[in-house]
Amino acid sequence: MHENTIAPADLPDDNGGHSPSVRLFVEAPLSEGASIEASTTQAHYLINVMRMRTGDTILVFNGRDGEWIAEVLVMRRSHCSLAVQTQTRAQTGGPDIVYLFAPLKKARLDYMVQKATELGVAALWPVITRRTVAERVNRERMRSNAIEAAEQCGILRLPDVREPEKLSAVLAAWQPARALIFADEKAPIASSLEALHAVPQGPVALLIGPEGGFDETEREALRARPFVHAMSLGPRIMRADTAAVAALALVNAVCGDWR
Amino acid sequence: MHENTIAPADLPDDNGGHSPSVRLFVEAPLSEGASIEASTTQAHYLINVMRMRTGDTILVFNGRDGEWIAEVLVMRRSHCSLAVQTQTRAQTGGPDIVYLFAPLKKARLDYMVQKATELGVAALWPVITRRTVAERVNRERMRSNAIEAAEQCGILRLPDVREPEKLSAVLAAWQPARALIFADEKAPIASSLEALHAVPQGPVALLIGPEGGFDETEREALRARPFVHAMSLGPRIMRADTAAVAALALVNAVCGDWR
Repeated sequence: MHENTIAPADLPDDNGGHSPSVRLFVEAPLSEGASIEASTTQAHYLINVMRMRTGDTILVFNGRDGEWIAEVLVMRRSHCSLAVQTQTRAQTGGPDIVYLFAPLKKARLDYMVQKATELGVAALWPVITRRTVAERVNRERMRSNAIEAAEQCGILRLPDVREPEKLSAVLAAWQPARALIFADEKAPIASSLEALHAVPQGPVALLIGPEGGFDETEREALRARPFVHAMSLGPRIMRADTAAVAALALVNAVCGDWR
Repeated sequence: MHENTIAPADLPDDNGGHSPSVRLFVEAPLSEGASIEASTTQAHYLINVMRMRTGDTILVFNGRDGEWIAEVLVMRRSHCSLAVQTQTRAQTGGPDIVYLFAPLKKARLDYMVQKATELGVAALWPVITRRTVAERVNRERMRSNAIEAAEQCGILRLPDVREPEKLSAVLAAWQPARALIFADEKAPIASSLEALHAVPQGPVALLIGPEGGFDETEREALRARPFVHAMSLGPRIMRADTAAVAALALVNAVCGDWR
């Protein structure tokens, strides 16, 4: 569903054979012999962009039932039905990392959502801070970006896209069993990893502030909570979307599934 | 020099006062009382976009002499001269990380260069691999992107932009005192950090392959060298530009200046 759709070489291919080169997210349940309908957009893509024909195969996943090979059955103008054949990969979870972020402006938000999905987060949660610039957050667009990244990168679990909420409300309702790591650009520059090693084993969340950072009262409110861990991201200022990828990599390496 | 030029709040401001909100890279030497000329593009930006007037101040840096306040002296149609006043920050270096990468297509390459600059690399070195898609690399464009990122993020040291070279030639001429870390997507998924902790103290380089990864002969050639360290980036496939930011964050945290 993307001009840069990955070549088969990019996809994991455990059995050494040729994987179908198209991979689509579908809503329907997937099981052997099931029949599914492509959405209108997907049908257009399969028919007009990928020039698929009856009998061609693609990969499908729905975030719950793993990944399957599906064969093109019927194809008309803007309609395409597929027959689910065999499972190529069983459903897997991913690291229990909830990703909270001050929404950015359009292109950077798209990018950030795609990247966070590639990094395997369990949930995307827009948080409104005092310096947040983007006021309205388009959840449908966020979900499309997450789907696009998941389709391209062979990801099986789609992140949950949550309703935007104010930082104060998020903190007030926080379940303290989940550690909340926040990238604090005003923290003394100490070891990023040391801060992460102090996080208790278990579910975690990462919070990235807006361009311009958190304001003083927000930083104090964060630092006052026992479940909050401040992490420095080094001596240089980074744009918020860079900080997001950098911090998610560190969190994955210490608290996630890169170990 | 960018529509998203950062607000003063984004810039480090050690003395608690108001920093000028515009920050430009210049080629000329910087010292107290020096007079410098803005480039035509910069003059256009200062005059027509930022609506600067004589007497207004901006921040300037050249990658060698630290960061200075400069005052607008003369301003005509597309000409602007500035008087260098006081130094705001002394020149600093940065981590000794050389960043080697298979060039990507336009927008993703721009992005990657900006991000690597934000992450403080010492040099950007395009490396041609077998699966590299972008054949021609525009060094001037890479330099512009590095400058833009440095201007926006308060960075003092501009990365050196090297001539593209073939991977085989790069490896043949490698000075083994510099460890070469490569993100190996076919490495067994072990701890990313353990691999980095095994890298000897000293100068390092990070190599990120193209979309689709290195081919088998390249991986073998890399793995055969004693100065090469393979690092996994977890169980998910990432786009090359995501892998770049993720890997640079980990390298900074273990071998760079985030500790």
